[in-house]
Amino acid sequence: MSDRLYIFDTTLRDGEQVPGCQLNTVEKIEVAKALEELGVDVIEAGFPVSSPGDFKSVEEISKAVTWPTICALTRAVENDIRVAADALKYAKHKRIHTGIGTSDSHIRYKFNSTREEIIERAVRAVKYAKSFVEDVQFYAEDAGRTDNEYLARVVQAVVNAGATVINIPDTTGYCLPWEFEQKIRYLMEHVDGIHNVRIATHCHNDLGMATANTISGILGGARQAEVTINGIGERAGNTSLEEVVMALRSHKELNIDTNINATKITGISRLVSSLMNMPVQPNKAIVGRNAFAHSSGIHQDGVLKNRESYEIIDPKDVGIDENSIVLTARSGRAALKHRLHVLGCDLEKEALDKAYEAFLKLADRKKEITDDDVLMLAGAHREQHRIKLDYLQVTSGVGLRSVASIGLLIAGERFEACASGNGPVDAAINAIKVIIRRQMLVKEFLIQAINKGSNDIGKVHMTVEYDGQHYYGFSANTDIIAASAEAFIDAINKFPQ
Amino acid sequence: MSDRLYIFDTTLRDGEQVPGCQLNTVEKIEVAKALEELGVDVIEAGFPVSSPGDFKSVEEISKAVTWPTICALTRAVENDIRVAADALKYAKHKRIHTGIGTSDSHIRYKFNSTREEIIERAVRAVKYAKSFVEDVQFYAEDAGRTDNEYLARVVQAVVNAGATVINIPDTTGYCLPWEFEQKIRYLMEHVDGIHNVRIATHCHNDLGMATANTISGILGGARQAEVTINGIGERAGNTSLEEVVMALRSHKELNIDTNINATKITGISRLVSSLMNMPVQPNKAIVGRNAFAHSSGIHQDGVLKNRESYEIIDPKDVGIDENSIVLTARSGRAALKHRLHVLGCDLEKEALDKAYEAFLKLADRKKEITDDDVLMLAGAHREQHRIKLDYLQVTSGVGLRSVASIGLLIAGERFEACASGNGPVDAAINAIKVIIRRQMLVKEFLIQAINKGSNDIGKVHMTVEYDGQHYYGFSANTDIIAASAEAFIDAINKFPQ
Repeated sequence: MSDRLYIFDTTLRDGEQVPGCQLNTVEKIEVAKALEELGVDVIEAGFPVSSPGDFKSVEEISKAVTWPTICALTRAVENDIRVAADALKYAKHKRIHTGIGTSDSHIRYKFNSTREEIIERAVRAVKYAKSFVEDVQFYAEDAGRTDNEYLARVVQAVVNAGATVINIPDTTGYCLPWEFEQKIRYLMEHVDGIHNVRIATHCHNDLGMATANTISGILGGARQAEVTINGIGERAGNTSLEEVVMALRSHKELNIDTNINATKITGISRLVSSLMNMPVQPNKAIVGRNAFAHSSGIHQDGVLKNRESYEIIDPKDVGIDENSIVLTARSGRAALKHRLHVLGCDLEKEALDKAYEAFLKLADRKKEITDDDVLMLAGAHREQHRIKLDYLQVTSGVGLRSVASIGLLIAGERFEACASGNGPVDAAINAIKVIIRRQMLVKEFLIQAINKGSNDIGKVHMTVEYDGQHYYGFSANTDIIAASAEAFIDAINKFPQ
Repeated sequence: MSDRLYIFDTTLRDGEQVPGCQLNTVEKIEVAKALEELGVDVIEAGFPVSSPGDFKSVEEISKAVTWPTICALTRAVENDIRVAADALKYAKHKRIHTGIGTSDSHIRYKFNSTREEIIERAVRAVKYAKSFVEDVQFYAEDAGRTDNEYLARVVQAVVNAGATVINIPDTTGYCLPWEFEQKIRYLMEHVDGIHNVRIATHCHNDLGMATANTISGILGGARQAEVTINGIGERAGNTSLEEVVMALRSHKELNIDTNINATKITGISRLVSSLMNMPVQPNKAIVGRNAFAHSSGIHQDGVLKNRESYEIIDPKDVGIDENSIVLTARSGRAALKHRLHVLGCDLEKEALDKAYEAFLKLADRKKEITDDDVLMLAGAHREQHRIKLDYLQVTSGVGLRSVASIGLLIAGERFEACASGNGPVDAAINAIKVIIRRQMLVKEFLIQAINKGSNDIGKVHMTVEYDGQHYYGFSANTDIIAASAEAFIDAINKFPQ
């Protein structure tokens, strides 16, 4: 049986500290429930003393969540600890996370203190926390830049004082993997009773090495990883939950696994990205839009018969809707069949074989196979049913409500409507909905518009939910409102007729 | 003296293969010249046989660039190599990059071949390439999943055949750092004459470990790193140039350095992001918008006197405009002075001391210190000069040209104008420019609008160049056109009076 790695998620604490990422209590509860479904072991829910809002969030998350341990952050300060214990009163499983800086830089500049005094304060804080809860986690801030010998003395002292989990943060994201592994290994070898507690890694990504440092720390003996969804967090962020979980799943020879239900990863990634308004770049590992879509000329050389040649993770394992994956020469027969099904076209085995053969030929010439290509290959045509944008006029501004007037051509006939909205995109979408009367929900809406000027092209990606399925729409236009309307129509055109 | 690591940039080859990232030849030349200024050693300019466009790009980049070696990719196929040599004819320093898959999966499924035959084909390709150029690089595709013993035999054969650089790609991004280091070390120890050639790493980021694997490979003996700007590339992308370069600069104890002028990193990151329309997520290491802006409650505990407590890289070292950095409790006196200068307010030492003291107090309460706060602290007020948006009306659509009508209040007086544009944002910006008659250039324009629906709030970040300085503007609004206009006005309000 493989060893268990405990997943400590700090999306709602360290992740939420990013300027512009603040969530309200209702949103935090939504994320906490999604984390519970994902299967995390510990949710760090906030820093209760820092604000009444943080206090309330910890309290409400404690009520809303059943299985994960709820953790509250404190400094090594009595009042912080008292307030945290109070905020945790409704939690079924509770943990106080207290600690202090241990690097020379922190001791000198932040605390104007000495090494011995820091140890005393740490011990006092842990003992005080133990008077409220059984489960006390201690963090040695900037442990990454604390020399191992002193760090071991600090850890020994807090273990003796009753700490149950020891968090070793690389606060500045400075460590290299082998260095961090040695640090954890040193503690495992030099602290009495360390095998009765759990060591945690908490790595930052300033040099792009948070995931590697976390895996290295685990190799060194850590059995809790502190992570966030999408790796969000201050500066370059924290360690990505999804990368650590899938690195362990991909390397079964390490014989360490988590309790995470990986098929929930993509869903929670999008939830956090959208609630915090923090875009995930297309080439982000595991959860980026392109993470599983690839199509280089050289890789298409010859007929590739097995997905495994280029993909180490099956997109389905992380809950990716297969419909959103670009079909390429490497897509299997099953992927083609599934896409045809979604497009309302179910083929018999023989017809599918023929379509697949034609598909491979086309994929050899064309990097990206569109849904229209797929339908053409299958001998199905829907051009006649197609909805086309005839005209669109939108008026919006400051001090007035946005209004859109739209004309659509459906099977050659023109339909017209107008509607208002909170903004120009909302107005345009609403107007389309007046004509296309189906229960549709815009689930994801991403504008890519990093431009050199204001008149460059904007690209819009949109996911629309209809009848339990997700449909993907895309458009590019110098006018981002028009691109949004076109992307919506593109998605609608993929609904089964 | 530190050892030299050669930087091989493949932004224009492996990076450019991403669907939607294709550049035309003029854009490729722009990137190639920026790479030359950055100080890369080798530019992989394309895969000439794959298309006439790729051929032309390699040819034109060869003419446009002087110092870096220009490299062209081929398969282990005579025609590929002949075409590559032809495309490189104008290069001052030229390299052919040929190779073949060496993992069992590639040998069996891609080539339907045997281990011995693969070695023969590899040797034949290297010898043929040597008949055209002196500098021949060989890649062992999927080396990450090739067993070390066979890999060493392949490498021995191509070294004997005259290869000058041996590229060991982790094609699927599967390796763990120590594994990859051992692989390189194994080659260093088991191939005769390996010290006369150079080993290169080429790591992919599927498990988030590309940078760590690259640094590990270097520790194992590699002296060339294959990288892309922003880590772009298929799926989860390639290794980020900026992360490798800055990891080595931050860890001088490794005693390995590159020829990169790091102050050009931010500029080329934005150039590539904008040309390829590939957004960089805010928490991307080194080049993300938040990489150097941080402000957590706990970090602001007490007065932090030195930047080094939380930052391992000085933002200036990677060419970040200090004006774009959020001022927090950790910002130094110099940062405050500089910001005040940019805002047109130069203080004497005593006044600055007083302002800095007030600044630290304010920063203790407030996460983000705005430019208005800064001016208030310095006793300067510009409220009376402030430009305010009075009203805005924009009409846009499909089949019509966008037009905007705007009213601005400047020092209480209303100015009105209208203008048209390529899209609604362009029209609104143009209308503002009719009133504010200065030489302004929108340099960066980023819309963050990942939403659950179409009526969520959009955030706009904008950088405006005026008189050689960059000014940063921001706004959030349910109407993205209004947010764009407000962000532009926000930036203008920061110009010196």
